[in-house]
Amino acid sequence: MLSSNPDFVPRIGTVLEVLSILGIFVFAASGALAAARLRQTIVTFAFFALVTGVGGGTVRDLLIGSPVFWVHDAAPAITCMVAALLVWITPRSFWSDHALDWLDAVGLAAFAVFGAAKALNFGVPPFVAGMMGVVTGCVGGIMRDLLAGEPSILLRPELYVTAAAVSSGSFVLLRWWGIDVPVASVIAALLGFVLRALAIRRGLGLPVYRGIRPE
Amino acid sequence: MLSSNPDFVPRIGTVLEVLSILGIFVFAASGALAAARLRQTIVTFAFFALVTGVGGGTVRDLLIGSPVFWVHDAAPAITCMVAALLVWITPRSFWSDHALDWLDAVGLAAFAVFGAAKALNFGVPPFVAGMMGVVTGCVGGIMRDLLAGEPSILLRPELYVTAAAVSSGSFVLLRWWGIDVPVASVIAALLGFVLRALAIRRGLGLPVYRGIRPE
Amino acid sequence: MLSSNPDFVPRIGTVLEVLSILGIFVFAASGALAAARLRQTIVTFAFFALVTGVGGGTVRDLLIGSPVFWVHDAAPAITCMVAALLVWITPRSFWSDHALDWLDAVGLAAFAVFGAAKALNFGVPPFVAGMMGVVTGCVGGIMRDLLAGEPSILLRPELYVTAAAVSSGSFVLLRWWGIDVPVASVIAALLGFVLRALAIRRGLGLPVYRGIRPE
Repeated sequence: MLSSNPDFVPRIGTVLEVLSILGIFVFAASGALAAARLRQTIVTFAFFALVTGVGGGTVRDLLIGSPVFWVHDAAPAITCMVAALLVWITPRSFWSDHALDWLDAVGLAAFAVFGAAKALNFGVPPFVAGMMGVVTGCVGGIMRDLLAGEPSILLRPELYVTAAAVSSGSFVLLRWWGIDVPVASVIAALLGFVLRALAIRRGLGLPVYRGIRPE
Repeated sequence: MLSSNPDFVPRIGTVLEVLSILGIFVFAASGALAAARLRQTIVTFAFFALVTGVGGGTVRDLLIGSPVFWVHDAAPAITCMVAALLVWITPRSFWSDHALDWLDAVGLAAFAVFGAAKALNFGVPPFVAGMMGVVTGCVGGIMRDLLAGEPSILLRPELYVTAAAVSSGSFVLLRWWGIDVPVASVIAALLGFVLRALAIRRGLGLPVYRGIRPE
Repeated sequence: MLSSNPDFVPRIGTVLEVLSILGIFVFAASGALAAARLRQTIVTFAFFALVTGVGGGTVRDLLIGSPVFWVHDAAPAITCMVAALLVWITPRSFWSDHALDWLDAVGLAAFAVFGAAKALNFGVPPFVAGMMGVVTGCVGGIMRDLLAGEPSILLRPELYVTAAAVSSGSFVLLRWWGIDVPVASVIAALLGFVLRALAIRRGLGLPVYRGIRPE
């Protein structure tokens, strides 16, 4: 029903492309940082950076049937290598203990918006496009945590998937209301980021399920 | 050689579609239940339900080169959301400690049959179509356990992959013998489910490898 | 720029096909061996063998947009089944404690070369084709370790991803220098294997990151 609005489907514009490169860079850096915590080598830094940086977008592209964005264009892969090198050569003091969380928060918001936009662009129904943003935003971080053998960021007490859902869902809604792509992108990304920031700083969370005692 | 039978390739019919929706629903519920055990929020319930509910079919579709079934049709995703909500709002007593195992068993049998049928439909050789059913049936549960950080259901002592192989393999064989799709589907799904039920209730298992001592 | 050489793009030839089947066989055996360490059944052996044996090539094919190689041709899947059966029936003494490492090393080198070659064949830019070899070579082992719940081979102190990068990168370079596919394949695979062998035997590693103390 939402697609009755003729101007609803966004074209990928400058703001979205900046969001995408930004998301790749910060997720890649968060991947390299996870490798740093594990005292790995520069090559493993690069591998973690690549998987974390392009993992979310790769799954999105496979799901919506688009050619995988980084395979025929070397720019995203090079972005990941630069992020890995930067984490490798910068002094330790440059990266606080919570740097991973903050980079992840930026990537989450940026990818959630970009994922929803690209899915809408491919004719995916709005409800599913919103989910596509969530899956896209969360998959990079999940892969990083799986590779690193760390407890998944999904399972921390503060809200995480919810922030992606807010960015992704609000982008779809703003587009439905006829808001321009650049404005909708920035508002939606900020909403998700602020929510995740509150979660990181103040432990903000949704009510958790209390019906079943953990075993 | 098997494809010489002109009537061999099944058309996806009513019984198979019911099996598919049933499989999605019960796997989604098992995903939500895993989120419940981890005391997560409603949004994480929905994420776990989505990944578990459509994960197996997604991998099958990517492997056989079909468009991913839930991306251009919102019904499966909505089914997952309904399952998540149901687990969230129903009282604890509604879900026994073993509910996860039983839901998983139904989903395993249903997906194994549906996966094999869809693969045959796409012209995949019978031997590989049987494997496709196994992979499809097992991937949802594996993803759920990986996300939840739980020991994989694959590694429990009772048989699991075997039940999927029985459903999937017997469907391919029954079709080869010329049995109609609805009858073959129901028989094959029941065979796998009964085997898995025996595994859950009586610890039924195949002989395990004894040549190498665990480290 | 590298593609200006008209003879640069390799055709998949005999040597590469042998490397591919060898890689599938040894990775499948390493998967079955992981199942053996977990005292699993023959069916789980087969599942682990399949996922480990074809996992890397599957991800490569999905990324470059090729039909998944083992879905319409039963030979690779049968190779995996044979490997699983062989591990199941051979006496324990046949497989030393480090057999997994050595099989994995052969598979890593073979898949890294084959992955890079197939990617070049599909018109992927050389820089990305090199990465495709790395991802392809490493994904089978990663999936095996994730399924088995073992610490990822990625995170061991000796170099691992680096060996894949050397095989994959040197193949791309050798092809760029105009070396024939069979010669380039063998040299590149040997370089990576020797490096990984030194890592296994002597603990060879690159310098690790020391800027951040592990938590």
